[in-house]
Amino acid sequence: MTKIIDGKAFAEGLGAKISQSIPHFAEQTGRRPGLAVVLVGTDPASEIYVRSKGRMARKLGMESFEHILDEGVSQEELLALVARLNADDSVDGILIQLPLPGHLDSLELVSAIHPAKDVDGLHPVSAGLLASGLPGLVSCTPLGCLMLLESVLGSLSGLDAIVVGRSILVGKPMAQLLLARNCTVTIAHSRTANLAAKVAQADIVVAAVGQADMIKGDWIKPGATVIDVGTSRVIRDGQQKLVGDVEFASAAKTAGAITPVPGGVGPMTIMTLMHNTLLAAYRRNRLADPAL
Amino acid sequence: MTKIIDGKAFAEGLGAKISQSIPHFAEQTGRRPGLAVVLVGTDPASEIYVRSKGRMARKLGMESFEHILDEGVSQEELLALVARLNADDSVDGILIQLPLPGHLDSLELVSAIHPAKDVDGLHPVSAGLLASGLPGLVSCTPLGCLMLLESVLGSLSGLDAIVVGRSILVGKPMAQLLLARNCTVTIAHSRTANLAAKVAQADIVVAAVGQADMIKGDWIKPGATVIDVGTSRVIRDGQQKLVGDVEFASAAKTAGAITPVPGGVGPMTIMTLMHNTLLAAYRRNRLADPAL
Repeated sequence: MTKIIDGKAFAEGLGAKISQSIPHFAEQTGRRPGLAVVLVGTDPASEIYVRSKGRMARKLGMESFEHILDEGVSQEELLALVARLNADDSVDGILIQLPLPGHLDSLELVSAIHPAKDVDGLHPVSAGLLASGLPGLVSCTPLGCLMLLESVLGSLSGLDAIVVGRSILVGKPMAQLLLARNCTVTIAHSRTANLAAKVAQADIVVAAVGQADMIKGDWIKPGATVIDVGTSRVIRDGQQKLVGDVEFASAAKTAGAITPVPGGVGPMTIMTLMHNTLLAAYRRNRLADPAL
Repeated sequence: MTKIIDGKAFAEGLGAKISQSIPHFAEQTGRRPGLAVVLVGTDPASEIYVRSKGRMARKLGMESFEHILDEGVSQEELLALVARLNADDSVDGILIQLPLPGHLDSLELVSAIHPAKDVDGLHPVSAGLLASGLPGLVSCTPLGCLMLLESVLGSLSGLDAIVVGRSILVGKPMAQLLLARNCTVTIAHSRTANLAAKVAQADIVVAAVGQADMIKGDWIKPGATVIDVGTSRVIRDGQQKLVGDVEFASAAKTAGAITPVPGGVGPMTIMTLMHNTLLAAYRRNRLADPAL
């Protein structure tokens, strides 16, 4: 019987643990962990994301600082804002909502965030700490995928994993996390030959491409665990539908466990952001990591 | 007919190009590129390495600064030395010869080197730039392996590569370099199941484990390119011999091209250090990268 991995339920459980870790922090520091989110412009999807991040932070007992800036803000003004947030001790985590308008240099802005406050895990220093096996903040989506995998499989050691997609945001840090858990990791992408045969050998499949149904159900090895990061909006039977990178119906017949879209990886990403904010808050104050 | 990849000849060719790029730098800056090497203690192998690096730098027309310190030097003294070398404009590259005596913290020392002078490519920031696809200095041995691969294969795009070994020094940056060249990359290690079958599927095998003959010749896919980073001293027929991670005699029958040990990757490592020093010198002075 295939297990459908309930990301929503797992995220709620994680949220409860995060909530429970806040009083200890508050006792030690006299304040609550603080997350600053920077939004530029009025993209409706970005506005929804930013609002739900702020709402979740407050719900768990953190402070939320929202900086909503006009579309026309300059790189210099944003750099100055990041510098102020870096210096502000009530801010433990800084997140710049991407994508930014075209006249802004995202990489320079993300790189200006102090790595100790880089709760999105996108700073090159965070990537380097991860690659070097050193403690740092890990990009939220792959961290959520790892938590779901470990919730299903326990130890991942010795398993064959394939990560489809090599983005800096998901695929590459995912590969590093799996490697650190002693998986044998294959990183596949648009130039990969015989993707079907490679997926068919994997005990763990993480799909992070963003192409609806590009991984076919009959590619999946019987019993494999499938984590689907992709979300694409498609029209099916005249209705708009959100689907993943993996053909869910057919894959669910073969897989041992699989995340649905929606309700799998999605709910984890916002909760791992909360997790990272809490961790950043603890570490910046030289407190031992909370039990999560 | 299997091609035996002549690392020594390739390294000499690269050395000639490096040499030719120095006059332009000297004209622009009024000085020659400078490499500082820090050696602690009297380990004979380390002494030989440090001396040959200095000799090669001078031979190519660079300045070499050798800092030989007593075994008993403190972490603080070494950090102060690194700070002076960071501030010294005549120093373009800083290399701390590893391993260091046990009372010293290598990671803290390497992390104290300014990333722009990190010619060994071991700073976590260098790892992060590589993982993020940003320009930085790349660890010498994997860079040398990549150069040899491209010298044999031209474009690596779409090829299946396996990297055996996941060290921060070789395996992990090698995987990043191959991925950036559009290979499908598998990273294998001591916990990998069915290594033979995985090696047998690869168009490119990079072995970086340090276990004599652990990869058997009959695992190699016909026509594959094999890069052997390992060097182990063994006794064969009563004689001491240097051998690689790959069973050379049998692998050479199947492979399309293979590096010998010695004479393959080894000579490249010192030359890529010179390459990195030159590159660091050019970049620190905001000159366009030399043609190498």
